[in-house]
Amino acid sequence: MEEKRKITLMEVGPRDGFQNICSFIPTEIKLKAIDLLVDAGLKKIMITSFVSPKAIPQMQDASEIAKACVEKYPDLELSALVPNMRGVQNAAAAGLRHLTMVISASKSHNLANVRRTPEESLADLASILEAFPQIDFTLDLATAFACPFEGETPLDRVRYMVSAARDLGIRRIDLCDTVGMAYPSQVRSYLGALMEEYPEIEFMVHIHDTRNMGMVNTLAAIECGINTVQATAGGLGGCPFAPGASGNTASEDLIYMLNKMGYDTGVDFDKLLEAARFIHEHVDGNYSGHHLNIKKT
Amino acid sequence: MEEKRKITLMEVGPRDGFQNICSFIPTEIKLKAIDLLVDAGLKKIMITSFVSPKAIPQMQDASEIAKACVEKYPDLELSALVPNMRGVQNAAAAGLRHLTMVISASKSHNLANVRRTPEESLADLASILEAFPQIDFTLDLATAFACPFEGETPLDRVRYMVSAARDLGIRRIDLCDTVGMAYPSQVRSYLGALMEEYPEIEFMVHIHDTRNMGMVNTLAAIECGINTVQATAGGLGGCPFAPGASGNTASEDLIYMLNKMGYDTGVDFDKLLEAARFIHEHVDGNYSGHHLNIKKT
Repeated sequence: MEEKRKITLMEVGPRDGFQNICSFIPTEIKLKAIDLLVDAGLKKIMITSFVSPKAIPQMQDASEIAKACVEKYPDLELSALVPNMRGVQNAAAAGLRHLTMVISASKSHNLANVRRTPEESLADLASILEAFPQIDFTLDLATAFACPFEGETPLDRVRYMVSAARDLGIRRIDLCDTVGMAYPSQVRSYLGALMEEYPEIEFMVHIHDTRNMGMVNTLAAIECGINTVQATAGGLGGCPFAPGASGNTASEDLIYMLNKMGYDTGVDFDKLLEAARFIHEHVDGNYSGHHLNIKKT
Repeated sequence: MEEKRKITLMEVGPRDGFQNICSFIPTEIKLKAIDLLVDAGLKKIMITSFVSPKAIPQMQDASEIAKACVEKYPDLELSALVPNMRGVQNAAAAGLRHLTMVISASKSHNLANVRRTPEESLADLASILEAFPQIDFTLDLATAFACPFEGETPLDRVRYMVSAARDLGIRRIDLCDTVGMAYPSQVRSYLGALMEEYPEIEFMVHIHDTRNMGMVNTLAAIECGINTVQATAGGLGGCPFAPGASGNTASEDLIYMLNKMGYDTGVDFDKLLEAARFIHEHVDGNYSGHHLNIKKT
């Protein structure tokens, strides 16, 4: 019997979904959502973001969330997003060992997001990598396919950023379609080139569903050989600094498709839908997930 | 220079989108919507349905719509759905030459839809084909991938229906994923088999977006060699007799992707989005189109 190909869904809802919600989500609701996601079989979860509580008050409980999850789920790959040295310090103090830093491939988006050029952000990344050799860092390369201000990101620009990160020691890069403007043939051509040119890098994708291409682009990436894809339960989310970017690809829609196609995701669709329904019930926001709209029978 | 592959979008919103709307849409709004769709470059439009006005009052203006469109757009492929001999008579009298009949591949869905077995419906089709040799008939094969009552439709059942229709003289069959339960590997395997086994048949697909697979399944069909795909502006619609089937694949989302991928659709995305926005503004219903949610900048 042929062995099924393993695909890992990295759930990023507790970070990318929750970060845009203005009214504070009680910490126990966040923890309960994570419990349900774990119960569905997810092994990689981005649980929070160590950003300034003044900039994003929603994430003020990052340390509390991280400590609770590290204690409860020592065997899972729990990660967090960190914007700077202080974020890394706090995340590391809370016990996290997997952290993600974001840099945009396009200059205008990086300036809008963190008021620094991509080159300045790369220099910051270098200092951080040097200061925290014990942490496993992933680079979220935002606007890896297109930028809301500059349009399509040239592949050569992506190569430049990937090379720069690789030279700093980064071995895992998440190509983010921040505004949902990528299309399947672009995903295939960019990933085809990058995966061949950078065999030392593990690529992931994070595809938004803004233009209804979340599923088709994620599948295109998987069929290029990508083994880890990001999504959010319910499709909650979007980047606050990218106009019109609302709507992540919904984890449960993706898992439904991948399970049907015979991939080994290790995730129970019904339980994941339950987790998405729990979040949908407790958190008022933009949801792009379609299964949420199907009435229970 | 390589020639671009032509893909034809058959717009079925004025039929499949409007048929589920309870409150009557004024005839002039329907005609204006069709004008905007034509203006966007669509050449094949299913403009109405010749059903009993008692069963579906929305379609009581079928003859008026058809006559107006045939006069205004003599060069386009205008079509309508017809459920029975009387429908064909009325559609033909209104000047239409392209008509579609629906039969479900699964017995329970056909019974729920028209209170006849698929075999009884095939017998009706035979009489109709004999009575109207001047009409170009398409068969909409509903539940061609899955049935809300019976689950996945076996490929052999689809073969049986296709063979039966072919033997009656049908040369164009639209495989309908009535409840949005098809998945890409199924679409590939069913279409791969059917297109090889029935070279005399022109296959089309009509894929619902219920489970967020409208785009990915339609693209899978196109990459199998399908040249005509159906969708509705705004993603309005769904089958009233298929629980949870709300949401067609949105024409404008599909055209955006196909144009980006370099297919020659002949459709202007911006104008099509305008048509979808017009319908969205005037018709209260379920819309699954994502571009509708992106704020104009």
